Amino acid sequence: MAILSPRGEDFPRWYQDVLAKAELADNGPVRGTMVIRPYGYAIWERMQADVDSRIKATGAVNAYFPLFIPESYLRREAQHVEGFSPELAVVTHGGGKELEEPVVVRPTSETVIGEYMAKWTQSYRDLPLLLNQWANVVRWELRPRLFLRTSEFLWQEGHTAHVDEADAAAYARRIHLEVYLEFMTSVLALPVFVGRKTAKERFAGATNTLTLEAMMGDGKALQMATSHELGQNFARAFDIGFLGADGRRHLAWTTSWGSSTRMIGGLIMAHGDDNGLRVPPRLAPTQVLVLPVRDDAALVEQVSGITEGLRAAGVRVQLDVRPGLSFGRRVTDAELKGIPVRVELGPRDLAAGTVTLARRDTSEKIVIPLDDVLTRVPALLDDVQDTMYSTALAARDARTHDVGNLDEAVEAASVGFARLPWVAVGDSGEARLAEESLTIRCIQRPDGTIPDSADEPDLVCIVARAY
Amino acid sequence: MAILSPRGEDFPRWYQDVLAKAELADNGPVRGTMVIRPYGYAIWERMQADVDSRIKATGAVNAYFPLFIPESYLRREAQHVEGFSPELAVVTHGGGKELEEPVVVRPTSETVIGEYMAKWTQSYRDLPLLLNQWANVVRWELRPRLFLRTSEFLWQEGHTAHVDEADAAAYARRIHLEVYLEFMTSVLALPVFVGRKTAKERFAGATNTLTLEAMMGDGKALQMATSHELGQNFARAFDIGFLGADGRRHLAWTTSWGSSTRMIGGLIMAHGDDNGLRVPPRLAPTQVLVLPVRDDAALVEQVSGITEGLRAAGVRVQLDVRPGLSFGRRVTDAELKGIPVRVELGPRDLAAGTVTLARRDTSEKIVIPLDDVLTRVPALLDDVQDTMYSTALAARDARTHDVGNLDEAVEAASVGFARLPWVAVGDSGEARLAEESLTIRCIQRPDGTIPDSADEPDLVCIVARAY
Repeated sequence: MAILSPRGEDFPRWYQDVLAKAELADNGPVRGTMVIRPYGYAIWERMQADVDSRIKATGAVNAYFPLFIPESYLRREAQHVEGFSPELAVVTHGGGKELEEPVVVRPTSETVIGEYMAKWTQSYRDLPLLLNQWANVVRWELRPRLFLRTSEFLWQEGHTAHVDEADAAAYARRIHLEVYLEFMTSVLALPVFVGRKTAKERFAGATNTLTLEAMMGDGKALQMATSHELGQNFARAFDIGFLGADGRRHLAWTTSWGSSTRMIGGLIMAHGDDNGLRVPPRLAPTQVLVLPVRDDAALVEQVSGITEGLRAAGVRVQLDVRPGLSFGRRVTDAELKGIPVRVELGPRDLAAGTVTLARRDTSEKIVIPLDDVLTRVPALLDDVQDTMYSTALAARDARTHDVGNLDEAVEAASVGFARLPWVAVGDSGEARLAEESLTIRCIQRPDGTIPDSADEPDLVCIVARAY
Repeated sequence: MAILSPRGEDFPRWYQDVLAKAELADNGPVRGTMVIRPYGYAIWERMQADVDSRIKATGAVNAYFPLFIPESYLRREAQHVEGFSPELAVVTHGGGKELEEPVVVRPTSETVIGEYMAKWTQSYRDLPLLLNQWANVVRWELRPRLFLRTSEFLWQEGHTAHVDEADAAAYARRIHLEVYLEFMTSVLALPVFVGRKTAKERFAGATNTLTLEAMMGDGKALQMATSHELGQNFARAFDIGFLGADGRRHLAWTTSWGSSTRMIGGLIMAHGDDNGLRVPPRLAPTQVLVLPVRDDAALVEQVSGITEGLRAAGVRVQLDVRPGLSFGRRVTDAELKGIPVRVELGPRDLAAGTVTLARRDTSEKIVIPLDDVLTRVPALLDDVQDTMYSTALAARDARTHDVGNLDEAVEAASVGFARLPWVAVGDSGEARLAEESLTIRCIQRPDGTIPDSADEPDLVCIVARAY
């Protein structure tokens, strides 16, 4: 009588079950849209706050651009319009009348931000112009899947303009490593492969796309965030120019970079297990749930004291004394929601002066003296965070295989990731992989760092099935 | 050669000038839309953070509902559809095809949230259900004005369901007083009249609307936020029912309440002067700007130390050493942006061991010993906050006149607010006021508190021209 479909048997169904039972999200009334429920949104707010402060630390500032974009804007950059036109939602009526010119609901704000960057940039002194926006975007989806692929999703999109190519490239890389990689590694507890996309897999209009690729519980890859160098393509299309120190007019070099509610899907699929979600402590809206084994005045008084003590120590803690719910039901619910640590207190604990700490990641239970709870819980949260990362890393490594040719890559990628010399892909390699529903997730150096170009010697690429 | 049109001569033009010169906002490319520039958005982020924490303190949680709503949802509540249909933006095409059923871009999420509240509410134990959402909404505007009236704006909308009318009414009032009134008074430094709307001025579908009304620099009123009791109207339309403690099924009682980027317009128009914006210190993204009088190594070293010291003391401080900009230009810019306090340091200060504190609200300059800067600046910020409130209150009181009948109200409201006995309005009073472009902004008790009904004796009403 399992609450969830077993993860190993039917991964997509398990994923749907977790979304529903952990109360993360629901389907919206219009096909492809999503309702993010309070617990799912609390996770998103924590992601937002952390990513936002990292973005600001690089010098970027937030702004807000309109939801509606004139259709003509998208047409100005040829590859961009090609990339997005099948996915657009179009408003034809407003204020009770047919509009003279239909407007598009933004699939990304690249074009409208380009238009305003051009207005705001006069001199080289105005550069770099480092903008970020938190917003909803719309890309019509025929095969929606909550958090992974929805017609509307929430994201941040950064857009920057620079005096030269080197500054643009350095900034895109800085965002990629200091914001995204750091956040995923240290907060999401997710190991990611970092590298360049192939020309075929690049963002529409980009000259270089950097990516971070995580392995999900079914061995498939999820692209967690991307950072693009756009060369002068958008600057040319939107006339983002500036007067240089040399007194002459130049075109700027731009970048863009984004991360979205898709990361919640990645969190679920990478860390979840048969009992539900597992949320790393640094991300968790509730790090610790305090539970009395039964509804007894002496127990409730004790757990209230523990809760206040932990809260004062800076732990995000909740007390669960919901009436009419058995201890077992409350434990099951905490496990479904992936709360990292439970502090459980029963009559025997009360008599013995102990409490039980239950960790969600390993299911281990530890009985400690009550007096130690304020020192042991924060240390345990750190340990859960570290263990979740090393467990995810070991799982990924166990399913990542070094291979020498495309046939071996196809074989290895049926259960996980294949790492292959980039030269072994050759001219027709990507087409061959596509026949097997595989893609090159990224190109990287043998030591896992980002190459400056796809022509460096000894590069490897990661091949996988992907969401 | 004033930078701004004089506020007393052409208030609307002054407002546009402040928006442009303080770099707060721009018109978007689609008529009626708005680009919120980084400085304007930083103000919004501070508003959001403060209001959000107050909302959460009442027990509400955030969630996110879809941008697109089926047209049929709006039709379910008759008054609601009447209220919004002239303002709707309609998506007819998605994914390259005409949609089978057009969808509406949310003008408010009342209806879609009602639908999900019905799914999530089974028993009286699930209530109250206290939800809030931060989102963009769209209401097509023919006469847009940035921040005040734009086709797209940002807001928070709260939606709650309760077991009975009393609980719903008490919660709406709590939000109104503990969140909105407190925020406006103590953070925005804005005095507001609080009260009920007349039946004519209520939100479409509400049984009671509470409002907060502030006086702008031209004597007109701006509605700063509203909180609605919706009775059982939405619960009936969306079937938000629950099994009561009595074992029988009941309809819930719902509320909704919202505040938006319009508050930025109110901030500008209430506190701005001929030199630009004035931002109260508790709201200000930058509370203190540190300025060396010229670009000199000894000065820059000293101001850097002051900046670091203030930052360490918890002050939101920036150092302005932009090259190529004269001291005068930098001061003008700080005044346009309304930064509450400037710390200025010149060669004479350096020699004398002093610094000059310049307050934006009164234009007063104070020379203090350098060693006192870390104690004097925080105290000065508190004083600026208090002074801005008392100045705004005195200005409002000077333009608010107690009158006895409608004719006198029309006269008084030509330059400010009129306060009139509610009984003097009579059956045709609101129509008479409407002929003069006046409205009743709120009904309140003589002591300024919110009446429980419009039938209480001795009530007064505030009459004004309004944005």
